[in-house]
Amino acid sequence: MNSARDFNETVLGELRAILGDRVSIAAAVRGHHGKDESHFPDALPDAVVFPESTEEVRDIVNICRRHRVPLIPYGVGTSLEGHVLAVRGGVTVDMSRMNRVLEIHEEDLDAVVQAGVTRKQLNEHIRHTGLFFPVDPGADATLGGMSATRASGTNAVRYGTMRENVIALKVVLADGRIIQTSRRARKSAAGYDLTRLFVGSEGTLGIITEVTVRLYPVQEAMSAAVCAFESIDSCTRTVIEAIQAGIPLARCEIVCDTTIDAINRHEKTSYRVAPTLFFEFHGTKAGVIEQAETVQAIAKANGGMDFVWATHAEDRNALWEARHHAYFACLQLRPGSRAMTTDVCVPISRLVECVHETMADMKHYVAPVPLMGHIGDGNFHLMLLIDPASKEEQQLAEQLNKRVVARALAMGGTCTGEHGIGLGKQDSLVTEHGEETMALMREIKRLLDPENMMNPGKLLAP
Amino acid sequence: MNSARDFNETVLGELRAILGDRVSIAAAVRGHHGKDESHFPDALPDAVVFPESTEEVRDIVNICRRHRVPLIPYGVGTSLEGHVLAVRGGVTVDMSRMNRVLEIHEEDLDAVVQAGVTRKQLNEHIRHTGLFFPVDPGADATLGGMSATRASGTNAVRYGTMRENVIALKVVLADGRIIQTSRRARKSAAGYDLTRLFVGSEGTLGIITEVTVRLYPVQEAMSAAVCAFESIDSCTRTVIEAIQAGIPLARCEIVCDTTIDAINRHEKTSYRVAPTLFFEFHGTKAGVIEQAETVQAIAKANGGMDFVWATHAEDRNALWEARHHAYFACLQLRPGSRAMTTDVCVPISRLVECVHETMADMKHYVAPVPLMGHIGDGNFHLMLLIDPASKEEQQLAEQLNKRVVARALAMGGTCTGEHGIGLGKQDSLVTEHGEETMALMREIKRLLDPENMMNPGKLLAP
Repeated sequence: MNSARDFNETVLGELRAILGDRVSIAAAVRGHHGKDESHFPDALPDAVVFPESTEEVRDIVNICRRHRVPLIPYGVGTSLEGHVLAVRGGVTVDMSRMNRVLEIHEEDLDAVVQAGVTRKQLNEHIRHTGLFFPVDPGADATLGGMSATRASGTNAVRYGTMRENVIALKVVLADGRIIQTSRRARKSAAGYDLTRLFVGSEGTLGIITEVTVRLYPVQEAMSAAVCAFESIDSCTRTVIEAIQAGIPLARCEIVCDTTIDAINRHEKTSYRVAPTLFFEFHGTKAGVIEQAETVQAIAKANGGMDFVWATHAEDRNALWEARHHAYFACLQLRPGSRAMTTDVCVPISRLVECVHETMADMKHYVAPVPLMGHIGDGNFHLMLLIDPASKEEQQLAEQLNKRVVARALAMGGTCTGEHGIGLGKQDSLVTEHGEETMALMREIKRLLDPENMMNPGKLLAP
Repeated sequence: MNSARDFNETVLGELRAILGDRVSIAAAVRGHHGKDESHFPDALPDAVVFPESTEEVRDIVNICRRHRVPLIPYGVGTSLEGHVLAVRGGVTVDMSRMNRVLEIHEEDLDAVVQAGVTRKQLNEHIRHTGLFFPVDPGADATLGGMSATRASGTNAVRYGTMRENVIALKVVLADGRIIQTSRRARKSAAGYDLTRLFVGSEGTLGIITEVTVRLYPVQEAMSAAVCAFESIDSCTRTVIEAIQAGIPLARCEIVCDTTIDAINRHEKTSYRVAPTLFFEFHGTKAGVIEQAETVQAIAKANGGMDFVWATHAEDRNALWEARHHAYFACLQLRPGSRAMTTDVCVPISRLVECVHETMADMKHYVAPVPLMGHIGDGNFHLMLLIDPASKEEQQLAEQLNKRVVARALAMGGTCTGEHGIGLGKQDSLVTEHGEETMALMREIKRLLDPENMMNPGKLLAP
């Protein structure tokens, strides 16, 4: 593809021949698809297409391959690492019209959906069945996007991440082949695990068009709890002890005093301004009470204050709304700022040390740095609020983020627990895995996408 | 490699130069390594080597690659699908000297072991920690072998299979590169999931030398239960209803009346000769009682008889010993026979139908066909006992096995829940996945092992 004129005359014409008016080059549409929730500068695609079937995605892929035009899959644009930015131009494949729930198998505890179905949409759809889909990254992301980034979130400590909860995928490969990675059986030892190869591949190996996911019975009883502590160290120790006691925590989240303050302002709540743990317990009535009592005792021994239970659905929802809005609440601490969000995950045994050293280091930043995290998994986030006009702040934030990553890697951790590599962590990925392992990842990329047309510039450094 | 003389003069010499007397061409040693627990004929390797480190495995791989000699990794030889048979000769890499537990991280709930460590050895090693490794395929297999076949077993309904429980692998690739697939963090979104690519690869993509696995706290209370039913259908319905009620069954196994009879003879037990479910519940004391009572009520509604609990460790162990010995007990139903073991897994909703039709079909076999299975996962086994001298029985058993597979595939299931493809299911694998998906598996094989030296003849049909 040599020029905008070539693009308009050839690619657009061919795309319109199959999609009609479901091809857009309007500035507003390209602008909307050229940004996400990351701190990276916008990067607009040349066109946006809205397929309605796997076969249409295949046709789009075939057209773009012939003309060597990059393809960027797009869910709802909630990536925090620049996954959907069209850094080399090309065609963004917006999956929003592939939003049908195809099959619900209540007895089998699974669902087959098109990739553009969001997690809330699925849960709304199955509400009457007594089942739910647990993976909850906060944002109402699509199941295709969540698969592509190996998303997780607040429920992962009990129910696992997308890695554990995707049973099968339908994928359009770079050469236009359509593959189904697996069948619906709950387990299988039949051949290479292609499902897991595409979960976390960030659109760089193919475009996911259908997702089969596990569902779980809504438990008889659910109860949530909040508890404030003198220090983040005490929070962390409480969680480690609870996990080692075998408590099947359904959720286990930490927020620091800065975050709680931001939540109070944003949500008009009145939580004590102190490092705080949010818990959720799922089980039978008696089981949930036992879990909560055991955790309360552990919390108390670690100096926990104001242990509050919420058993009614409304109270629980209010509590989790507060936690889920923490990201947006914290953005308001510096109106107009954008957030660089760190995402390391370390073995639990190193969590106290890692969080402690990191929070000390964050004192070097120009603004308060809120902490929140999925502490039961060893995964925590810091929000470095950046004035978009300030290059210095951007650089300082990048330095601090690199130091967080280096610290986590030195402790046996990973540079990203759930946000993915995208644009910002490509160097960290190499440090994390080493050259030999990275070489194999690059060989797999070349095998599946020899022309580098599938979300180019993401995940793997050139 | 053109002849035995070439092999002796070159390969053996080079292997001995690095391994000394840890290279054997003794007939007894080759014979021991040329068979497994499958019904396939023995196939002896030309030599067996006993490495003690990943670096030695790398050196062995480099020598064999230069001379184009096949490599077959070997754990303890409990494969049921011919994985360790040296069907094209070559060098068997016996991992039994790589049997060191390298690291136990009690706080992180994980362990790093050499691939030759067996599951019982690991559990013995960590007994004092209050943690355990749950995956239990019955046989005391190595963790390397269990990873390579994506093993599961009686605990998978609660704790998952090797897919969910392997955190990271060290692997020697066909070109001699050593890679570490991941770090120890409980979750990560850092790049392609190489761990899962090797879990289930049956030695065809590389040799696993180290395994990092998840551990779990031993629960406060464990209780087991046995219940007999009028029919297999009633067993199956009981299990489906228990799962849909959200009971976190730790184990859930079925055996038919033929199997119970064999167990009674072999173990000197006196279970009622009827289709029977074996359960195990893990949790807090109150939680376990609740679970067992709920399941008992469901069983009773489905005609369950003689619901017996076992809460003491000794009684539980006796009960599970009985279940674990079912395979050997059933072999005694026809002394001198070998077993062809079916291994399909179907969505739970089709389980009643699949088991029912299958048991009816098995009436065409020459001997009683015992059934046992991990029914909570939809995975069940039938043992077709074959007189090794009878070609007719072999053929009939193959026909019946193919019909079981076809039936499971037609119901959305898989040809193998946990035993793997090995030698016997290569055609079924193609039927299961289709040509497009199989083509991608073959491309991955060629990428990682272009000379087809790694366990050739297994998993992928030529």
